[in-house]
Amino acid sequence: MSTLNPIIEQILSHRSIRSYRSDTIPRETIELIVAAAQRSSTSSNLQAYSVVVVTDITTREKLSALCGHQRHIAEAPVFLAWCADLNRLDQVCSIRGYQQNHAYLENFLIASVDAAIAMQSAAITAESLGLGMCYIGAIRNQPAEVIQLLGLPARVFPISGMTLGVPAEEPIIKPRLPLNEVLHWEHYDQAAQDQHLSAYDQTMIETGIYQGRQVQTPENNNESEDYGWLEHTARRVSQVHRPQLRQAVHDSGFELK
Amino acid sequence: MSTLNPIIEQILSHRSIRSYRSDTIPRETIELIVAAAQRSSTSSNLQAYSVVVVTDITTREKLSALCGHQRHIAEAPVFLAWCADLNRLDQVCSIRGYQQNHAYLENFLIASVDAAIAMQSAAITAESLGLGMCYIGAIRNQPAEVIQLLGLPARVFPISGMTLGVPAEEPIIKPRLPLNEVLHWEHYDQAAQDQHLSAYDQTMIETGIYQGRQVQTPENNNESEDYGWLEHTARRVSQVHRPQLRQAVHDSGFELK
Repeated sequence: MSTLNPIIEQILSHRSIRSYRSDTIPRETIELIVAAAQRSSTSSNLQAYSVVVVTDITTREKLSALCGHQRHIAEAPVFLAWCADLNRLDQVCSIRGYQQNHAYLENFLIASVDAAIAMQSAAITAESLGLGMCYIGAIRNQPAEVIQLLGLPARVFPISGMTLGVPAEEPIIKPRLPLNEVLHWEHYDQAAQDQHLSAYDQTMIETGIYQGRQVQTPENNNESEDYGWLEHTARRVSQVHRPQLRQAVHDSGFELK
Repeated sequence: MSTLNPIIEQILSHRSIRSYRSDTIPRETIELIVAAAQRSSTSSNLQAYSVVVVTDITTREKLSALCGHQRHIAEAPVFLAWCADLNRLDQVCSIRGYQQNHAYLENFLIASVDAAIAMQSAAITAESLGLGMCYIGAIRNQPAEVIQLLGLPARVFPISGMTLGVPAEEPIIKPRLPLNEVLHWEHYDQAAQDQHLSAYDQTMIETGIYQGRQVQTPENNNESEDYGWLEHTARRVSQVHRPQLRQAVHDSGFELK
């Protein structure tokens, strides 16, 4: 491997934080984090995203309830709602006498990827300042309610939430799949995919993170002895997940043609 | 603003690179970059993405032709195809006797956001090693051909390309929208959106980056005197962009219900 440096060392030591101290985060710190996020690449410089910063405790409690009652959303001093945003481009078009074409899946994807790129730069920036963060995909559990709560106009859709604060826990660095499961050379190598899955499964079982946290399914509601990443993941992705998302995105003004 | 640190200073100085030296990138460097990307957050630890690393010149030339004939794709020693990947989770389900549910837009979005988060960590890691990069959204111009070229199986869809190499140019750091255009406090503030757009437009005109690069439209094929970010962006987003994406994603095995 090439020589490590402080940036890589930080990225390699990432853990999501789900327990926070009550310390407030200065406004300037949040501004710096978002300013750094803004410097990231954005498709054709469209900057098709926005972020709503929530510090109000009542709103955070409501968000926690809307996002699967995750306790750390109410606990963390700051919640960031990262949104795909084509609303601003409606204004841009209006100023210049054009009409935006936002009818296609491509338009939604551009804005979603812009938001995701920005939020990951924000995550790395926050961690460089000693803060902890956790993405909240559950912001898509009840998107219509989140849209109403945060006052999001048409074509502003919450892609991911993020809790932010001073960590009150030091969780393990969760092992990831072997490098060659995700890294392919020259062509996608499907044959190589299965090779290391069992070894990874064993590694994950040894972390103990699944103890008492087995996913129940209609087909399988008993405790499994060899319950690891494979069984946990298989149970999870065999279930229907947020089937109402397409309608909610559509209702928000993305036609997704 | 809070105190800067080397990580933030690097993120704040990002520029996309579109001209590269021919220096090859050691295999271990690419492995380190992807290993760092792997440490990023991933929804429910699904790790629903893959990356195909292309160094072969013939393949890079084909990719350049498929991605709008961008010269730097053939020029850069490395091209990374970042893909949403639910194929691996098909294997995981198969091993454990389940069947993956991948029918919903949510499933595609989870994998796309996983890929986007990973690739932005890769970008920051690469830049920390003195390399330059540029995202290639044009990988979605002709996705079926890219899928065939890289041998992507069902439910592996290219979200973004990335050129990588030693920079042979030192472009300006492109100004971004004022912070308060993308950062909203407590609620989305639509009224604030328009306030700084003209000032940003003027800033962008002064960079000179639009000289000789005006987008032509059926409605407007003459050179505009006050052509800046507003006019450039309005012309661009008023046009239909990649209308075939939904069909291509669907054909790749994502039902997008």
